[in-house]
Amino acid sequence: METIETLLGHRSIRQFKEQPIEDEILDKILQAACNGSTLGGMQLFSIIVTKDKAMMEKMAPLHFNQPIATNAPLILTFCADFHRFDRFCECRDVPTDAYSNFQAYQWAVTDSIIAAQNACVAAESFGLGLCWLGTITYNVPQFIEILQLPKHVIPTACIAIGYPDQQIPLTTKLPVRSLIHQESYRDYNDTDINNMYAALEKDTHNATAVAENKTGNLANDYVSRRYKKEDNEYFSNILYKAVKEQGF
Amino acid sequence: METIETLLGHRSIRQFKEQPIEDEILDKILQAACNGSTLGGMQLFSIIVTKDKAMMEKMAPLHFNQPIATNAPLILTFCADFHRFDRFCECRDVPTDAYSNFQAYQWAVTDSIIAAQNACVAAESFGLGLCWLGTITYNVPQFIEILQLPKHVIPTACIAIGYPDQQIPLTTKLPVRSLIHQESYRDYNDTDINNMYAALEKDTHNATAVAENKTGNLANDYVSRRYKKEDNEYFSNILYKAVKEQGF
Repeated sequence: METIETLLGHRSIRQFKEQPIEDEILDKILQAACNGSTLGGMQLFSIIVTKDKAMMEKMAPLHFNQPIATNAPLILTFCADFHRFDRFCECRDVPTDAYSNFQAYQWAVTDSIIAAQNACVAAESFGLGLCWLGTITYNVPQFIEILQLPKHVIPTACIAIGYPDQQIPLTTKLPVRSLIHQESYRDYNDTDINNMYAALEKDTHNATAVAENKTGNLANDYVSRRYKKEDNEYFSNILYKAVKEQGF
Repeated sequence: METIETLLGHRSIRQFKEQPIEDEILDKILQAACNGSTLGGMQLFSIIVTKDKAMMEKMAPLHFNQPIATNAPLILTFCADFHRFDRFCECRDVPTDAYSNFQAYQWAVTDSIIAAQNACVAAESFGLGLCWLGTITYNVPQFIEILQLPKHVIPTACIAIGYPDQQIPLTTKLPVRSLIHQESYRDYNDTDINNMYAALEKDTHNATAVAENKTGNLANDYVSRRYKKEDNEYFSNILYKAVKEQGF
């Protein structure tokens, strides 16, 4: 039951020891990442390994200078990638325009996230800690430039990994039952919502954020401060344009 | 090293014993699915549990009548879901229009695939076998209707799970090194491509498909038969329209 313990023991780690990750462990993490399910066996993803601190510094502003963008010994950036398959087609004199569309993007995003999550589970099974940098989908054109991503490649996930230098409790989450539906979607009435979000609203981190920022309640803290409409729309346009310009 | 063995031992299973999955095991799978990383703690996904054979039969044509759409004791359909968060906002008198955009869709897709892959790893750690049904992103409007998905919910992943009734070798894949880039993307020359795809081209399943369908080579077998441009464009339009109509 080591695997279930690993999965149920997950929490995001944001402070790491300087200790580098052993090559043999990194190899296993990458092997695990590359052995997940994939659409039609196409393996529509690539993984960029960042160990060079200069590269981390270069990308840090695009990650809005979160400390984990530079304080981890290892960053893995996962990309939706149809470029390698395009090159395969070119080498076999086959047209490369069958996958310049939204389905192809969705498949490649899915493959890349499967790979990323496999890498996370593998890393945590070795006692490593990690945190996703959701910011990877914001400044996509600049990541494309720095990581030299060719046409048909879009970064989708970014994970900072290292030996944990903090001990933190499990994160408060929604009750599992609130995420599960039997046979068809059962909608939520007000009582359901109040019950489901009660623990998150009481959670110290959230309650402090609401109090300090005077946002009134947790829902409003998200909407008016953490993930604001104008920011989401601004970065949506950048992401959508990049997806189209990269050939999807 | 049970976890690494589970991850490296993954192969898709398409034939299952009739033996149902024990409730305690399904509970653990769902707990694991719900404990992955998530954008800002928002948990932007839902899981629809299908055990009812009548429901499977109803969805089978939308999965193009693949046998696994009805021969597994359990199907889990994962959805990108902002609806629950919308309901939370409504209950707190907060506007729900901050997440009607492409970033929000990308976040929710990512959360849903993380959950799906965690469920897969958990299931395989119990000796269960599984196969993804990529077809879930094709006939999205009909899945929305059958599963009664409200606004801001889109199915993104579908997994058939059961006790394996077949023994199959590991799938031939690209060499791991071909998916990994150090510090920045290293493009592939023709020799790289020929080397990387050699094992896949020689693989019996692929070689037989190319010979029987007279498609000439593996790249062309994908482009002219398995995932054709006209099909991809047709289903892209349906998916993109559904994503917009569901409020993203």
